[in-house]
Amino acid sequence: MNDSANYRVERDLLGERRVPAGVYYGVQTLRALENFRISGIVLNHFPNLVVTLAMVKKACALANGDLLKLDPLQVKAIVAACDEIMAGKLHDQFCVDMLQGGAGTSTNMNANEVIANRALELLGRKRGEYKFLHPNIHVNMSQSTNDVYPTALRLAMIFELRALGGATQQLQVALAGKGREFRSILKMGRTQLQDAVPMSLGQEFNAFATTVGEELPRLRDMAALLSEINLGGTAIGTGLNAECEYRYLAVAHLREIAGEPLSEAADLVEATSDMGAFVFLSGLLKRTAIKLSKICNDLRLLSSGPQCGLNEINLPQNQPGSSIMPGKVNPVIPEVVNQVAFSVIGNDIAVTMAAEAGQLQLNAMEPLIGYKLLESIRHLAAAMDTLRSDCVVEITANADVCGDNLERSVGLVTALNPYLGYGKTSAIARRALQTGRSVKELVLEEKLMTADQLESLPDPETVLGPQIRE
Amino acid sequence: MNDSANYRVERDLLGERRVPAGVYYGVQTLRALENFRISGIVLNHFPNLVVTLAMVKKACALANGDLLKLDPLQVKAIVAACDEIMAGKLHDQFCVDMLQGGAGTSTNMNANEVIANRALELLGRKRGEYKFLHPNIHVNMSQSTNDVYPTALRLAMIFELRALGGATQQLQVALAGKGREFRSILKMGRTQLQDAVPMSLGQEFNAFATTVGEELPRLRDMAALLSEINLGGTAIGTGLNAECEYRYLAVAHLREIAGEPLSEAADLVEATSDMGAFVFLSGLLKRTAIKLSKICNDLRLLSSGPQCGLNEINLPQNQPGSSIMPGKVNPVIPEVVNQVAFSVIGNDIAVTMAAEAGQLQLNAMEPLIGYKLLESIRHLAAAMDTLRSDCVVEITANADVCGDNLERSVGLVTALNPYLGYGKTSAIARRALQTGRSVKELVLEEKLMTADQLESLPDPETVLGPQIRE
Amino acid sequence: MNDSANYRVERDLLGERRVPAGVYYGVQTLRALENFRISGIVLNHFPNLVVTLAMVKKACALANGDLLKLDPLQVKAIVAACDEIMAGKLHDQFCVDMLQGGAGTSTNMNANEVIANRALELLGRKRGEYKFLHPNIHVNMSQSTNDVYPTALRLAMIFELRALGGATQQLQVALAGKGREFRSILKMGRTQLQDAVPMSLGQEFNAFATTVGEELPRLRDMAALLSEINLGGTAIGTGLNAECEYRYLAVAHLREIAGEPLSEAADLVEATSDMGAFVFLSGLLKRTAIKLSKICNDLRLLSSGPQCGLNEINLPQNQPGSSIMPGKVNPVIPEVVNQVAFSVIGNDIAVTMAAEAGQLQLNAMEPLIGYKLLESIRHLAAAMDTLRSDCVVEITANADVCGDNLERSVGLVTALNPYLGYGKTSAIARRALQTGRSVKELVLEEKLMTADQLESLPDPETVLGPQIRE
Amino acid sequence: MNDSANYRVERDLLGERRVPAGVYYGVQTLRALENFRISGIVLNHFPNLVVTLAMVKKACALANGDLLKLDPLQVKAIVAACDEIMAGKLHDQFCVDMLQGGAGTSTNMNANEVIANRALELLGRKRGEYKFLHPNIHVNMSQSTNDVYPTALRLAMIFELRALGGATQQLQVALAGKGREFRSILKMGRTQLQDAVPMSLGQEFNAFATTVGEELPRLRDMAALLSEINLGGTAIGTGLNAECEYRYLAVAHLREIAGEPLSEAADLVEATSDMGAFVFLSGLLKRTAIKLSKICNDLRLLSSGPQCGLNEINLPQNQPGSSIMPGKVNPVIPEVVNQVAFSVIGNDIAVTMAAEAGQLQLNAMEPLIGYKLLESIRHLAAAMDTLRSDCVVEITANADVCGDNLERSVGLVTALNPYLGYGKTSAIARRALQTGRSVKELVLEEKLMTADQLESLPDPETVLGPQIRE
Repeated sequence: MNDSANYRVERDLLGERRVPAGVYYGVQTLRALENFRISGIVLNHFPNLVVTLAMVKKACALANGDLLKLDPLQVKAIVAACDEIMAGKLHDQFCVDMLQGGAGTSTNMNANEVIANRALELLGRKRGEYKFLHPNIHVNMSQSTNDVYPTALRLAMIFELRALGGATQQLQVALAGKGREFRSILKMGRTQLQDAVPMSLGQEFNAFATTVGEELPRLRDMAALLSEINLGGTAIGTGLNAECEYRYLAVAHLREIAGEPLSEAADLVEATSDMGAFVFLSGLLKRTAIKLSKICNDLRLLSSGPQCGLNEINLPQNQPGSSIMPGKVNPVIPEVVNQVAFSVIGNDIAVTMAAEAGQLQLNAMEPLIGYKLLESIRHLAAAMDTLRSDCVVEITANADVCGDNLERSVGLVTALNPYLGYGKTSAIARRALQTGRSVKELVLEEKLMTADQLESLPDPETVLGPQIRE
Repeated sequence: MNDSANYRVERDLLGERRVPAGVYYGVQTLRALENFRISGIVLNHFPNLVVTLAMVKKACALANGDLLKLDPLQVKAIVAACDEIMAGKLHDQFCVDMLQGGAGTSTNMNANEVIANRALELLGRKRGEYKFLHPNIHVNMSQSTNDVYPTALRLAMIFELRALGGATQQLQVALAGKGREFRSILKMGRTQLQDAVPMSLGQEFNAFATTVGEELPRLRDMAALLSEINLGGTAIGTGLNAECEYRYLAVAHLREIAGEPLSEAADLVEATSDMGAFVFLSGLLKRTAIKLSKICNDLRLLSSGPQCGLNEINLPQNQPGSSIMPGKVNPVIPEVVNQVAFSVIGNDIAVTMAAEAGQLQLNAMEPLIGYKLLESIRHLAAAMDTLRSDCVVEITANADVCGDNLERSVGLVTALNPYLGYGKTSAIARRALQTGRSVKELVLEEKLMTADQLESLPDPETVLGPQIRE
Repeated sequence: MNDSANYRVERDLLGERRVPAGVYYGVQTLRALENFRISGIVLNHFPNLVVTLAMVKKACALANGDLLKLDPLQVKAIVAACDEIMAGKLHDQFCVDMLQGGAGTSTNMNANEVIANRALELLGRKRGEYKFLHPNIHVNMSQSTNDVYPTALRLAMIFELRALGGATQQLQVALAGKGREFRSILKMGRTQLQDAVPMSLGQEFNAFATTVGEELPRLRDMAALLSEINLGGTAIGTGLNAECEYRYLAVAHLREIAGEPLSEAADLVEATSDMGAFVFLSGLLKRTAIKLSKICNDLRLLSSGPQCGLNEINLPQNQPGSSIMPGKVNPVIPEVVNQVAFSVIGNDIAVTMAAEAGQLQLNAMEPLIGYKLLESIRHLAAAMDTLRSDCVVEITANADVCGDNLERSVGLVTALNPYLGYGKTSAIARRALQTGRSVKELVLEEKLMTADQLESLPDPETVLGPQIRE
Repeated sequence: MNDSANYRVERDLLGERRVPAGVYYGVQTLRALENFRISGIVLNHFPNLVVTLAMVKKACALANGDLLKLDPLQVKAIVAACDEIMAGKLHDQFCVDMLQGGAGTSTNMNANEVIANRALELLGRKRGEYKFLHPNIHVNMSQSTNDVYPTALRLAMIFELRALGGATQQLQVALAGKGREFRSILKMGRTQLQDAVPMSLGQEFNAFATTVGEELPRLRDMAALLSEINLGGTAIGTGLNAECEYRYLAVAHLREIAGEPLSEAADLVEATSDMGAFVFLSGLLKRTAIKLSKICNDLRLLSSGPQCGLNEINLPQNQPGSSIMPGKVNPVIPEVVNQVAFSVIGNDIAVTMAAEAGQLQLNAMEPLIGYKLLESIRHLAAAMDTLRSDCVVEITANADVCGDNLERSVGLVTALNPYLGYGKTSAIARRALQTGRSVKELVLEEKLMTADQLESLPDPETVLGPQIRE
């Protein structure tokens, strides 16, 4: 008897179950908790997803209200419950594993149940009194997991991408700052790790800034692609069980609630099963990861040594580098960013396989796609922030090392091509390498140029190129 | 003595070598042929790449002519040699393996040497008389592999993408044609392979058409991204050894020769080492591959059987299906397209790793990137053409199978939700599944609706959705 | 003044920091917590890794004790602290992110500091009084992250693989059980999704059991490969700072503590940087994932429908399948297993790239490798357990559907090849497909065989093959 | 009329076709040539596959002869035709694209037709007179593509792996040779690209040799796994249409013909659809690729410079390194090996997806798996040969650079830990880095050790470790 205070009984297609009295979710969430116990990463690990689920549910309730399919009091209660969730409340009730079967049905039902039970409370009813407001009949009215879930996912990604865009821009600014700071430090440029021709350290960091900055327009395009939603398509895009006007109303409400320029996909049947936008996003995130990894590889190379490496720059010392080697400090921040990049690239393959596994009118693997993409976006943003604040902004240059290297390098001869021709400079280069003597010395000895002519070489004006001069 | 008729002696940085008398390439190509013997796929496997190398060389010669750095007769000879190559001649002389070290230097030198020797002939000289026109000094004037090679690659990809775009559009048209042809064939839609709600077979094929068609704007955007080139940047993007005006002239000439809206990258140092556009292209090709694979998976599922499968459509019989099972015909065309898709996805990983392996001012792995991307584009275009002409256009529908399936499916109940409510329809569905009796029968028995009401269900107007009605 | 009760001051190479009074970790862990804030998955997410770190530290302390390099009281205290951790205590103090730079140094220092502080308490000292027992000098004596960390990782993987082996075997048994249960249910076998030749449903499940069971010897081989450790190699495998006898003693102690047949790698320099065993393990896990995915794809296909699919088997109903479609039940367990498989395959790429990124004497990306592999092993084991208990054991067969399909299938004709020849059976097959009439009917009509002869076809003896007969 | 001399008419399930008079293949090969026009890489690109197809056909003919199912004259003719192919003849007739749908049926039929027509000639008949000896009825007797094709693939891989094993061993020997040659050259070891502790250059190359050598036992295990074949299982492993004794005879004959310890898989139904061995092989090849890539990355790092890089070793000069930079020589051989590695890793993903795409009783994507694996094995072997002969054997050391680096490196202090303790050595290290003064100088100044004591440091005995001492 007393025991019944601890639970309430709920029922679904499969029968009755006891749900703990204290929770807002219901029987279907309970089953999902039992069925999916693999990753341990649950919905509220991604607060934006919880928020966008509530946004979608609110928009649908308002649309159903407009069409007089839902009682105004029910609309009001559902909207109020959604508003609470959008404000950050009840997130602990969104507890289904991100890694789930059922194409997101458990996520949708988790939202339906929590919203229904909270709305019931707001209506002065008790949780579980679904005859007054039912998760499926009222909260999920005119909806299917197959349109609600991808819509919420897309919206969550748009929000996360905004954060990623911010981190990208800040990293670009930090790198460009170093580009300016190091603009007059001449050094040897390297191709295929071999000494090539002179450049400035500033140009090197500017190139990092440029390559990072190029992601920004791509991120914006991506958000636009994600803004095409299939809300209103219900189960397979035919809109069964939804009124004709409903979809326009629902999308319009969601556009306003989310503050995003959402639009209806042109072919809802296609939009229901197509994972194209997600695959494209994954490809873009991979591109960003590759760029970050390349930058970090370079930072680690340029700071290698100190005595037995390139040693052209110094990374900040974030922590002692070794449990055994005193004084050793390691490039731990670039290293962790490299690993994030590899992880994002791995996620891209998981997304690829999940997308390819779609069958007929749906892709049952969408939960993995959503999970991995949200993780990749977040990890990339965190990695960029860490890279910027704990590494890039504190990088210093070893201008003397850069200069000494340049002075003794054979790479200088390329700058003499216009004066001496490729044949003669090749011979000089060869002799310099064999004898260890400097290029300038040999040019003088062979009376190919005068000391005065040589004096001005490498001339920054010449070696840095017109872009810098401007 | 006589023997010397069979070869000429050429010399480079590493010493002298005998080059066969009959060839247009020279000593550096010879070394590359010896060094790289792995894939057996050589430059002329991709005629567009040979053509775009010639286009770039022609543009540079003209720019050098404009600046009076190259004698007008030399310019004329180089241009004439390039024109021949662009017209399809001498392609057999482009014989270096696509899989090469050296960041494309061997490709560039192969072009320099063939053009120099052909130009020498046009000048009335003999091959190898480089004092009159030298591969490095004259043909490669103001250039480096590091700007010539990526420029030629990008241009070749733009040309190949045009072909892919054509194949994409034709496939879209063919699929949309089937969409119209099958528009009135009602069938059961499936989610997670389980019977879901009704749709038309035409909607299914329309969705294929839509998803394929969505690649077209992406392909156009991609071509625009590839149009940013680094010609004029020479070795590392600083433009060393090239006059300030040269790059603008060279790009302008190339724009005209290629007939493409090429533009100069804003940061040439970045553009020299960055593989971002290639990675993005690879991601896009992967997306196309995934979509094709999903379509082919569906075609194979829908045509499965004939007696023990879904059997809703018939694929054309392209060849006997079995060496042992008489009468068996297999979906060989979708199967080969699936495999092309997997191959393209594998290529994406090769491109990813190659892009990530860039170091400092260059990416030495660019030859692999170029090779795999050109292969993926070509294979996708061929796969699309095959899929369209040998499969899609000949697909026929089994309308009776589609109808029979629909009639006995429990999935019909979803259409009754608005009339009976989710709770009642769930109960009906459950009973129908348990008893094997039809939904309509049970609804009548329980007097939930009248025969008249039921008669019109599923009503195409309702089940196909507003998009089709319009 | 009061404030100082809340923290203690610790110092390292980079300076002083306040460490919360209540924690067992120290200044270096503190720095790592600040540096690495990306995945949120910390060391104690993998209890086996925490345990094996303690095992390694205990073994090293005993070896140092044997060599009289460490005071017996210090040995005793370190051993006692390690025993506590091995018994499950203090795991909350192992809190560094799994995704970390520094090649595992932070993990090693986290262990060193927790053990040192707990040992200090056991010695009657206060935490932080490192002059009595120092994390680096005493706990880490004769060790480097570069031998301790991979050794602990390998041992943790061996333990996790044992659990995976158990799950594998149980799944095999469950599948084989269904193989026996369904042994006499005849059905049509399918190749390329087309009706092929008869088999029994039992053979189909037996094949699943066989393919899963084949992983068991591979898992055992794998454990043997992982048993080669580099403990004693210290920083780069040369054993600097460790006595010659130390490594043998340390390995011997660890062998006994862990109860595993560990052995010393033959080339410790190689063993320090080589990731070969990890890559091999990742390849094996991918293989297991592919097999599971294939099985789940088949289960979903075989249970598709119910009316519009193959419908040869029934999966258990784990949860309502749809928020909109009444009565729909989806194959949620196979679906989540598919997604785990894709995730493991993605992890393999992350491991691949991390392994390839090793440079010179170390692989700085080892933390990612360890993290992803431990995750993959655990997820696979959980997926197998879920698949077995929530799906396989409750699968039932639709014997009548199987039989009906078989009866009307043209695939029967292959069994007539020996009687009629390939040419005649081809003609029969063709006619059967065109007319929709059954093979038997046509054979009788054409008087190719008598009714008696046909009666016994398909004869289970014949169609199931000799293996079943035995 | 005359025209008929140029072709013969053949017929199959789909109707009549004209086959060119001069070819040995028949109508089904003709259809396959038309259906599959994508990669351009045809069967005879892999001569071992053509040979093993002939071996399998020969074995089956002999088994059928033993069972008196095939006329002795037919057996003799088929065997003779197979012997010719095994001797390298008629390979030009194996011309179907490796990338094919149909699960290898076209490959099998290509073999059946060529063998039948050649056997007909040997019997004194004309090509196409199939009533005397038919590709399906006689050459393919008791067989199916589904057992013949995988058997031939496995056998071809075993042969190719032998070549790979040879290349592996030779590369190991070459690397070990350099290990001995450089054994007394002391240098600074590096972890995370930072100066760590001393080692010898010989140890570095020995580690390369060890890691390459470790592939040899794996390759042997792999060959054993591949030796389990499904010959005799026919279409789906049930052995339909094959006598009970046939499979033992066929396998026994093939064992003898191939000279390989082949055995029958225990569960032929599983063996028919399972791709486990192929996936495992692909994982192993990826591991080899990763190891090669890591070695090549290291070789490029160690030879970087010459003036602005590590410059510890010299790679041979294989070709001029730049079209613009005189004197530049690039590490082209390691670079091409890196690219082969990336390509093999990409192939692994293609194999992975193809393996995962198997459905029910067969994997229709097996042609892609066979193609990619054969390519990967061959490319790896070629890459190893190139790496050995064109790079490793000619590597020289810059002993003075190694020594100079070591002398001035702070990394030396680790060797002082046992004398001075971690705290004091940390302080020394810090001061050395800040002042640029040498460790020895500071130790003397602070009177921590005497000059005599320091003299012997680094002592090769100590720094190189016990393994070298032995």
